[in-house]
Amino acid sequence: MSSTFGNTLKISIFGESHGAAAGGVADGFPPGEKIDEKELLKMLARRRPGQKNTTSRAESDLPEILSGVYNDQTTGTPVSVVIRNCDMYSRDYETLKNVPRPGHADYAALLRYGEAADRRGGGHFSGRLTAPLVALGAIARQILARRNIYVGAHLASVWNITDRAFDAVKLERETLLAPGEKEFPVCDDAAGLLMQRAIETAAMEGDSLGGVVECGVIGFPEGVGSPMFDRIECGLGKVLFGIPAVRGVEFGNGFAAALLKGSANNDAFCLADGNIRTATNRHGGILGGISSGMPILLRAAFKPTPSIAKEQKSVDLSLMKETTLAVGGRHDPCVAIRAVPVVEAVTSLVLLDFLLTEKPDFLR
Amino acid sequence: MSSTFGNTLKISIFGESHGAAAGGVADGFPPGEKIDEKELLKMLARRRPGQKNTTSRAESDLPEILSGVYNDQTTGTPVSVVIRNCDMYSRDYETLKNVPRPGHADYAALLRYGEAADRRGGGHFSGRLTAPLVALGAIARQILARRNIYVGAHLASVWNITDRAFDAVKLERETLLAPGEKEFPVCDDAAGLLMQRAIETAAMEGDSLGGVVECGVIGFPEGVGSPMFDRIECGLGKVLFGIPAVRGVEFGNGFAAALLKGSANNDAFCLADGNIRTATNRHGGILGGISSGMPILLRAAFKPTPSIAKEQKSVDLSLMKETTLAVGGRHDPCVAIRAVPVVEAVTSLVLLDFLLTEKPDFLR
Amino acid sequence: MSSTFGNTLKISIFGESHGAAAGGVADGFPPGEKIDEKELLKMLARRRPGQKNTTSRAESDLPEILSGVYNDQTTGTPVSVVIRNCDMYSRDYETLKNVPRPGHADYAALLRYGEAADRRGGGHFSGRLTAPLVALGAIARQILARRNIYVGAHLASVWNITDRAFDAVKLERETLLAPGEKEFPVCDDAAGLLMQRAIETAAMEGDSLGGVVECGVIGFPEGVGSPMFDRIECGLGKVLFGIPAVRGVEFGNGFAAALLKGSANNDAFCLADGNIRTATNRHGGILGGISSGMPILLRAAFKPTPSIAKEQKSVDLSLMKETTLAVGGRHDPCVAIRAVPVVEAVTSLVLLDFLLTEKPDFLR
Amino acid sequence: MSSTFGNTLKISIFGESHGAAAGGVADGFPPGEKIDEKELLKMLARRRPGQKNTTSRAESDLPEILSGVYNDQTTGTPVSVVIRNCDMYSRDYETLKNVPRPGHADYAALLRYGEAADRRGGGHFSGRLTAPLVALGAIARQILARRNIYVGAHLASVWNITDRAFDAVKLERETLLAPGEKEFPVCDDAAGLLMQRAIETAAMEGDSLGGVVECGVIGFPEGVGSPMFDRIECGLGKVLFGIPAVRGVEFGNGFAAALLKGSANNDAFCLADGNIRTATNRHGGILGGISSGMPILLRAAFKPTPSIAKEQKSVDLSLMKETTLAVGGRHDPCVAIRAVPVVEAVTSLVLLDFLLTEKPDFLR
Repeated sequence: MSSTFGNTLKISIFGESHGAAAGGVADGFPPGEKIDEKELLKMLARRRPGQKNTTSRAESDLPEILSGVYNDQTTGTPVSVVIRNCDMYSRDYETLKNVPRPGHADYAALLRYGEAADRRGGGHFSGRLTAPLVALGAIARQILARRNIYVGAHLASVWNITDRAFDAVKLERETLLAPGEKEFPVCDDAAGLLMQRAIETAAMEGDSLGGVVECGVIGFPEGVGSPMFDRIECGLGKVLFGIPAVRGVEFGNGFAAALLKGSANNDAFCLADGNIRTATNRHGGILGGISSGMPILLRAAFKPTPSIAKEQKSVDLSLMKETTLAVGGRHDPCVAIRAVPVVEAVTSLVLLDFLLTEKPDFLR
Repeated sequence: MSSTFGNTLKISIFGESHGAAAGGVADGFPPGEKIDEKELLKMLARRRPGQKNTTSRAESDLPEILSGVYNDQTTGTPVSVVIRNCDMYSRDYETLKNVPRPGHADYAALLRYGEAADRRGGGHFSGRLTAPLVALGAIARQILARRNIYVGAHLASVWNITDRAFDAVKLERETLLAPGEKEFPVCDDAAGLLMQRAIETAAMEGDSLGGVVECGVIGFPEGVGSPMFDRIECGLGKVLFGIPAVRGVEFGNGFAAALLKGSANNDAFCLADGNIRTATNRHGGILGGISSGMPILLRAAFKPTPSIAKEQKSVDLSLMKETTLAVGGRHDPCVAIRAVPVVEAVTSLVLLDFLLTEKPDFLR
Repeated sequence: MSSTFGNTLKISIFGESHGAAAGGVADGFPPGEKIDEKELLKMLARRRPGQKNTTSRAESDLPEILSGVYNDQTTGTPVSVVIRNCDMYSRDYETLKNVPRPGHADYAALLRYGEAADRRGGGHFSGRLTAPLVALGAIARQILARRNIYVGAHLASVWNITDRAFDAVKLERETLLAPGEKEFPVCDDAAGLLMQRAIETAAMEGDSLGGVVECGVIGFPEGVGSPMFDRIECGLGKVLFGIPAVRGVEFGNGFAAALLKGSANNDAFCLADGNIRTATNRHGGILGGISSGMPILLRAAFKPTPSIAKEQKSVDLSLMKETTLAVGGRHDPCVAIRAVPVVEAVTSLVLLDFLLTEKPDFLR
Repeated sequence: MSSTFGNTLKISIFGESHGAAAGGVADGFPPGEKIDEKELLKMLARRRPGQKNTTSRAESDLPEILSGVYNDQTTGTPVSVVIRNCDMYSRDYETLKNVPRPGHADYAALLRYGEAADRRGGGHFSGRLTAPLVALGAIARQILARRNIYVGAHLASVWNITDRAFDAVKLERETLLAPGEKEFPVCDDAAGLLMQRAIETAAMEGDSLGGVVECGVIGFPEGVGSPMFDRIECGLGKVLFGIPAVRGVEFGNGFAAALLKGSANNDAFCLADGNIRTATNRHGGILGGISSGMPILLRAAFKPTPSIAKEQKSVDLSLMKETTLAVGGRHDPCVAIRAVPVVEAVTSLVLLDFLLTEKPDFLR
């Protein structure tokens, strides 16, 4: 039970929000893969705090690769990456020590690890731990892109404002990657503006907003995934639920499928340039747990940041008395924004693991 | 990549729809656990085909336990169970051999395993494989019940008709287990009647309906689950997505959380009989991936059965020509009904695995 | 912690000596592999009791394949095999219930599982559990043989009598497979006769003998295995130690290497038909944990059967008083004989798992 | 296939001999365990190069703990440790690039990873990687010692010179830990002197010597380990074979058991202070794969260092021509010496993992 996942590509994440560093090890990257450091830093920057509409905590987020890379390419042995922590104000959290924040993991940490837990800034539960995940995911994403497999995500919704969804059938590389190139990761900038305004309003009210991230993958080879418990949804589902604040995961039309009749949900098979394809893509590129050759589409729901300035009810654990608190510190008014590259990273790592396990020759 | 899952309690499922048998091995049940065979058969019966509103295929579904049980109790070594197949009409499927059914896994099987795949009746992808899962899950559920941990599920919705949801805060054993005692597994029988009527109509139209299963767990000890990737949601998410036809999984208020502000989503901590509890339970009993002591609540979305009698478009693979087909054979007009005990089984197995791994002394 | 092993090819073994059956599941065999049932039965027969110099318990050992095979070839989904038990005399063991047999696992079973353990005939600890292992290993061995990878073993020694060792450099298929074709599995029949005589004498004295099994593999591709903990020795070591009665495992010259100087232990590289080979093969075909292209050679030491007719000291657990016992029942005077195909089976399964994980295209 | 191992306590090792660092992550240490840094450094020092009779490469081997420790005690989340490399002379290896050293892993690295491999100083195959293993193992050993479980090892033999073996029945803490307190880790200092003299002679001859490490464990609770493939020997065997240069592993009397009759190998049960014990301990504290309550004893055979100054035959890979080489650089004339704490570390990690998995309440 742990901070590791993966079959052929094994990921181990370590670190605490206010400890020395956050880091990770990826054991199983194929040898001889070039690392584009600029791209890696760009992806990390998209997750970094201190951007507009995110927490003002300033982290340089400069990763140091300690192993597994030689002459700028992978060697085949474990790649480890360390991102030092800085700009930590642990005193912000001192007052909260005995009063758990509603919706927050610090009470969970206490239940799980007792007094020994390092609860400063969320400790090992902190969103900070997604930084090394993005660093390693960026490498996986580059390895996939080299094989014309592209992974991109956007903010499908913030609160009740929705972005234009990816086209499930004709998803092009440009559309897929465009949101990641923008300052605010949406397809439709008008929707993005409304989202930003809503976030600013919520922040001013000392509140926060939830959101949904949609992720798409094109170019992924068909026939990958295994019944029963290594369906692609199983592999991705497990790890997506490991991203802090995720409350739901769905593939294709997901929960909406439950509202349909079979005749309206099935995707008819058709021929396209001599290949078997489907005319629609409600199945989100995964049939029976196996990639169908259509774009893969998934959505992850993020709850609103639990740390809010508004006064909330809680319990003082030292006095065992009900009390109220208002959370200070610097917090994202909407974690879903910075989660966009995290979802891309996780999707890249898991899909690369599937390829390495089931279709390694595709990677040659 | 396979049909196995679990850490301390390892499950391996095998079999094909039209082969000799479906079966499973559970390696890791604690020794000395009494097996109530009557309860086990009752749970299997709820999944069995041939009930009202389900496929008319008659399966006796009588499991044979081959190992790991002595004098009606577990020995601590692997428990294996075999359920023989009978009443198979493979010829029903012969005509479909070259024309993949839209929305169905038989095309996926071909992509994954090639011509060697046993595609009769869905082969290893068949819902039939959930029978041994339920048999083993029934044992897990009994082991949990003996510690006052109760797992129950119901049909939260069929198509656009919704059942009354479980009360997230005051979920009592009686309410939780009631749907499983009924012929049609709902909380509100009036909603159940509407659902059945809708299913009958769909069946007559040669169509099928999707649905959502809600599962609740009470009595589960607090402090179980581990960041980052052994959060309870990770463990359950992975295996729930292994149930055929599941398209989405959510915990607590799930996707609805993405529509809320933090102040409306957070659950205030309060005192109840000297224990820390939450006044509301939007977090579904899991905070930071760790059980909070509140009822655990999850929902899984099932797509409508893809095998429908209505004419659909597909491709004849032998001629590489578009064609149409209408699926004969006997199929459930709504798989979600029989999925109710499957969700209970999977939830029981995964949560027992968590306890065995993190809190084995709770099981003494 | 369990009766399962493997990465891409996952094996799960179940059963008890005096329960309904022993069986196993192999999840991950590649699809489309022909199963030669006659060869499978032949390999099982070599392990079967009732042969000369082995226990007289008569087991038909007829395996039933329940899944994963269709039209005599693998489908790619889990292969399960069940071997029913018969000819069990549990009363033989009734008297031993309170007096653990020295050197035997029944005391261990009590420590591990308590009173719930099924200790009849050794229960899950019994050598009987190697029957399904051999059945599944026979399939793996056939898959390897189809790629000109041959796995063979012989009795390297019984007590103080040694057989001729395999030629580490020029190991030919014929020599490798010859012992498995004989009634008594040795290279040198004269040594075999001496061994059999020694075993008969020991049996008459109510005693038993230890022995060593040597296993060789030719044709295995070079470059397979991974530092640090998926070295070939790690994978094989783990599972070989899972065979009951194994006390030591070594590769190449093994413990003898510790007695040498580097200049006498190193194998000089040389050219052979344009390939890099070594002039000697003290490294047993594995360098740095990775296959070198030379024959793979390993040895496993089996202790003498602990169940002997001679009187031994033990403790009556019900009275907590020291006592003596003489073990009745039918037992092998030398388990190493029947272990020969078990070592072949385990080696085949583990090496096939390595290929499936690291060089799956070799299997195409 | 990778540099990770463990079930509940998961270890991931990374690094290269001449890269930035070697390090490791241990995911699963229980929370609240004090770390005695002095003891940790002492254990690392025993493995460090630059001691008498070992390579003169000077490594400070100062570990930095990056996570999982707060206020000098474990938090329950992953502990990561990084040991920076320094004093590297990669040019020593430049000349060897095309001429693989006999008996060395650099040819294996080429086979496995191709030209992308970082082969400087052995890369990821280097004995250097055992440094983080010892750092993490030192923590495990402290956790065990706090429960009166003691792990100690000594040089059982170097070349043909043998040390006094541990007393298998009456192994006391003092005797067990004494060798680790000495500059040369033996029980019998006279034997130690002979060993050192032999090593010096070999070094002067440009040669090296093999050796055997014996490891003992006392105080380990009985009833731990699981058939079939999580026997204690399976868990330890797998990881011990991951230590570079190990060629054989045996438990109890090991290979010697194969030379005995059952009556001479069985250990009679007896009563000692009301507990069931055995009068002798040929089984090495493990019966049926399960701890018996007697001292656990194992031996690992280390081959002589392959890097020797003596001229050896090899092949120039760039010319594909046979040639000769003499290995320069600084190398241990006998790796077994520095392997003593490595065997202790590995044994501690694996046994702690077993306890965490099967008897976690023992750790409370």
